[in-house]
Amino acid sequence: MRIVVALGGNVLLKRGEPMTADAQRANVRIAARAIAPLARTHQVVISHGNGPQVGLLALQGAAYKPDEAYPLDVLGAETEGMIGYMIEQELGNLLPFEVPFATLLTMVEVDPDDPAFQNPTKFVGPVYDQAEADRLAADKGWIFKPDGAMWRRVVPSPIPKRIFEIRPVKWLLDHGTVVICAGGGGIPTMYQKEAERKLVGIEAVIDKDLCSELLAREIDADLLVMLTDVDAVYLDWGAPTQRAIRRTNPAALAGIGFAPGSMGPKVDAACRFAQRAGKKAAIGALADLSRIVAGEAGTTISKEDDGMVFAT
Amino acid sequence: MRIVVALGGNVLLKRGEPMTADAQRANVRIAARAIAPLARTHQVVISHGNGPQVGLLALQGAAYKPDEAYPLDVLGAETEGMIGYMIEQELGNLLPFEVPFATLLTMVEVDPDDPAFQNPTKFVGPVYDQAEADRLAADKGWIFKPDGAMWRRVVPSPIPKRIFEIRPVKWLLDHGTVVICAGGGGIPTMYQKEAERKLVGIEAVIDKDLCSELLAREIDADLLVMLTDVDAVYLDWGAPTQRAIRRTNPAALAGIGFAPGSMGPKVDAACRFAQRAGKKAAIGALADLSRIVAGEAGTTISKEDDGMVFAT
Repeated sequence: MRIVVALGGNVLLKRGEPMTADAQRANVRIAARAIAPLARTHQVVISHGNGPQVGLLALQGAAYKPDEAYPLDVLGAETEGMIGYMIEQELGNLLPFEVPFATLLTMVEVDPDDPAFQNPTKFVGPVYDQAEADRLAADKGWIFKPDGAMWRRVVPSPIPKRIFEIRPVKWLLDHGTVVICAGGGGIPTMYQKEAERKLVGIEAVIDKDLCSELLAREIDADLLVMLTDVDAVYLDWGAPTQRAIRRTNPAALAGIGFAPGSMGPKVDAACRFAQRAGKKAAIGALADLSRIVAGEAGTTISKEDDGMVFAT
Repeated sequence: MRIVVALGGNVLLKRGEPMTADAQRANVRIAARAIAPLARTHQVVISHGNGPQVGLLALQGAAYKPDEAYPLDVLGAETEGMIGYMIEQELGNLLPFEVPFATLLTMVEVDPDDPAFQNPTKFVGPVYDQAEADRLAADKGWIFKPDGAMWRRVVPSPIPKRIFEIRPVKWLLDHGTVVICAGGGGIPTMYQKEAERKLVGIEAVIDKDLCSELLAREIDADLLVMLTDVDAVYLDWGAPTQRAIRRTNPAALAGIGFAPGSMGPKVDAACRFAQRAGKKAAIGALADLSRIVAGEAGTTISKEDDGMVFAT
């Protein structure tokens, strides 16, 4: 099977952990241990989140020269290098030397007319007091929204339309390469509207799960697995009646509200893949990866499944 | 022809320029304009320096949390993402959409017994006063050397032995992909000496020109071009008798002392390539790229050439 494994940002840097290189590497090592058995028997493509890492780079930049902050497309490219490197090295240490690896920088096209540009929702970077937020808003045109008692920058999260490097990804897979790509949802880019049609990076964040779904569809993956810190999709999450869904189909999930910015995008991406590719998508915890692939853990979503089966 | 184009770090971020994203992008755009005509008629692989960029990331990290500084291998990976992205995007805008591009993260193996580890020479990161340098030396085991009136960290610059991703680079080239790789001399790694033989990142900087030479040799390149801010290799550089060398061979250059850390490594890498691969290497200015490839500018070094011809 060809499997896309999407590692959630909080799998690689857990909430409350110090954002050190050592902490990141320790988490990447845990992820590599979970993925290695899969990579021995299947063709694996790995994507990953980058929220905490982009946040760290933004904090570092702001601490050094706040007026020379690097734009989000460049920070995203930096995190694809940083995280991809750690995954490639740690997973490489667990597989035979002969297995080829490639971490590919991934640019993703979005539509300038995407409605997300009218309503930026994605928090990025440090929190500011109101005076500093106002100053940055005037200086840089950034948009701020309240985050607790402070203010934080928000950017649009448009839908991914195209992965530019998709042909290299496919060629490398044809050679049995373990490919790491589409990190952080890919580097957000768009064609300028003028006649020249230059591709430019933009200040946005593309949802990692939607980008992984596009990737999985484009490379004809048999399975898209999104790994997070929750072991399954739950009905009535947080209520006494909560139940883990083991298997279901997109229609059965339609209309159920899942947490935006958390389980919601994963369920959306899973349903989209099940519907458009006609293949299986799964959501679950990193530690259960092999059992998720076997259909014994996590939540599997497929058009073929009828109704909704709960974990026992 | 298959050509490796190695962009000097000072081609991408010039001395004295502000280290902003805009300044970097403007320089990358200039480089892309020089490379585009070549990429239309030849198979091109692009490598690049990362000295100023690693310096910037080290400064940002030190400004935020000096005790949580990221190691040089991770910073190198970040710069491969950042610079590779800009090159891929800017060059992509100048070539037909059909031309595939891939920026590949590159890990490079060095030998734990490399004598460079006994004598760290490469300056990295910010300058410190003596008290802070002493504290960091005690805390982190960093080694410092005087840099003017201040102190600056030095790290080893070992010889590159192996580019781990060389097979993916070759496969992508076979499909006509413009490949960007080996940035900053590659991410420095070595196998631990224990039985386990894990590959780990190390605190070192691999010479970009030597790594580009290894890359060019491994992919059977016909030409290795190293671009810098000087238009040729000069005899008696800086003296009234200085003369630009147009063509020569490795034997004729042996014994001539070129500036260490500047023209020296480029001449070494060029001679190594000419000798080991039996192909041509060239050194010159970015603006002259097409004429360098045609043998009409810069300095070309080849085993076949006899003696030394000067520019007129």
